[in-house]
Amino acid sequence: MTVARAVELLLPQFPLLYLGDIARSPYGTKSDRTIVEYSVENTKFLIDKGATIIVIACNSASSVATDRLRREFSLPIIEVITPAVEQALAKTKTGRIGIIGTQATIRSTVYEKKILAQQPEYSVISSACPLLVPLVEEGWMNKKETKMILRRYLHRLKECQVDTLVLGCTHYPLLKHLIQPRIGRKVTLIDSSLAMAEYLQGYLRNNPDFLPSRQHEPRENRYFVTDITESTRFMAEKIFDRPIDLQPAE
Amino acid sequence: MTVARAVELLLPQFPLLYLGDIARSPYGTKSDRTIVEYSVENTKFLIDKGATIIVIACNSASSVATDRLRREFSLPIIEVITPAVEQALAKTKTGRIGIIGTQATIRSTVYEKKILAQQPEYSVISSACPLLVPLVEEGWMNKKETKMILRRYLHRLKECQVDTLVLGCTHYPLLKHLIQPRIGRKVTLIDSSLAMAEYLQGYLRNNPDFLPSRQHEPRENRYFVTDITESTRFMAEKIFDRPIDLQPAE
Repeated sequence: MTVARAVELLLPQFPLLYLGDIARSPYGTKSDRTIVEYSVENTKFLIDKGATIIVIACNSASSVATDRLRREFSLPIIEVITPAVEQALAKTKTGRIGIIGTQATIRSTVYEKKILAQQPEYSVISSACPLLVPLVEEGWMNKKETKMILRRYLHRLKECQVDTLVLGCTHYPLLKHLIQPRIGRKVTLIDSSLAMAEYLQGYLRNNPDFLPSRQHEPRENRYFVTDITESTRFMAEKIFDRPIDLQPAE
Repeated sequence: MTVARAVELLLPQFPLLYLGDIARSPYGTKSDRTIVEYSVENTKFLIDKGATIIVIACNSASSVATDRLRREFSLPIIEVITPAVEQALAKTKTGRIGIIGTQATIRSTVYEKKILAQQPEYSVISSACPLLVPLVEEGWMNKKETKMILRRYLHRLKECQVDTLVLGCTHYPLLKHLIQPRIGRKVTLIDSSLAMAEYLQGYLRNNPDFLPSRQHEPRENRYFVTDITESTRFMAEKIFDRPIDLQPAE
């Protein structure tokens, strides 16, 4: 949702089809095989609904399913890792970059691979933070326990004095206000949702074929979810800053 | 898994078919509709594999899917709530019973309904504890943060001076050692997994038709899971106290 929100703010002229696989979330604790299987299903759903570009708005799915989606589907598949890596490389001065993410993302070492491929002398320090997604989904964005857990997760990254920290999960922007003081005021946080929206803007500028031209197409954004709970509604209204018409994905 | 373990210890003569829907867990945060849909699929899977009695070894699924499963399938469907309720009613002296569980279980008020139907003058105080499942699955069974979160969740139940506390989620037995000192040494904890196994033992004694008799059937227990991760293996070995041959449910 944080990616969808960033994209609709930056690219309001493009109709957006959002699919949130709430029923089967979280993805970050699943095996690669299951994440790939679900990502293929989700992509098919969006293509059926008329999508012409797919954005994998999830770090876990981007980390393990991108290659398979690109082999299986012929339309452009844009993942959320590369934009964050580019911003991190542009921002770091010391070459010490921290990554926080789910188990699936950290296990894949995709951030390390992409950063070291360009700057092999840099240091990438990563930390899996599996409890942050449930804490955010619980709405515990200001609880003492959340702060303590964050301190534990960030401890090693702080010791290694990273000067740039990638928020490698689309839930983490909602914890920015807690992460910044704990990792240090001078550390640059890279929000992978915002990075993705800016990257997509550049991509669309370079590929004008995707400009919405056919006037008969519906232009309003559509938000599909595989399950609707109180927490889904709460999060949607918090992230989009307005009530969202969530439709069952069927 | 805690239910499967209790059942195999108490009823070793009955071959057990276990299905853990790890890929789509946790259930406790999902809507009733999604829990019902998944429970129907899981029951079909087990019947296909030869099950003759179904045990719903999950409080969330038991709370919202039991009626539907009983309408849809003709074999005995045994849920995990009734056994825990019976034990709580047998143990309480003051008639103040606490329930902790997932959002789906607590929202359903199934424990309140079953207890008050038998003892309308009793008090049932419930508390949803959605972070306990992720904390257990992270293996944070002895962390300071887990203790703090438990203290927060148990605060109201302690104030209301419950003398009996139902662990209304099959993950919670793994936190018993933290729950007991925080709720009070004199409070009786009801483990819904153990309660279920004892209930099933009584059920099978009263229904001798289910005694395994056909010698040509395979007698070994089978453990199916919809996803296999490091955490699944870790939990299985911890709960069963031995390496378990987890098979993909396909």
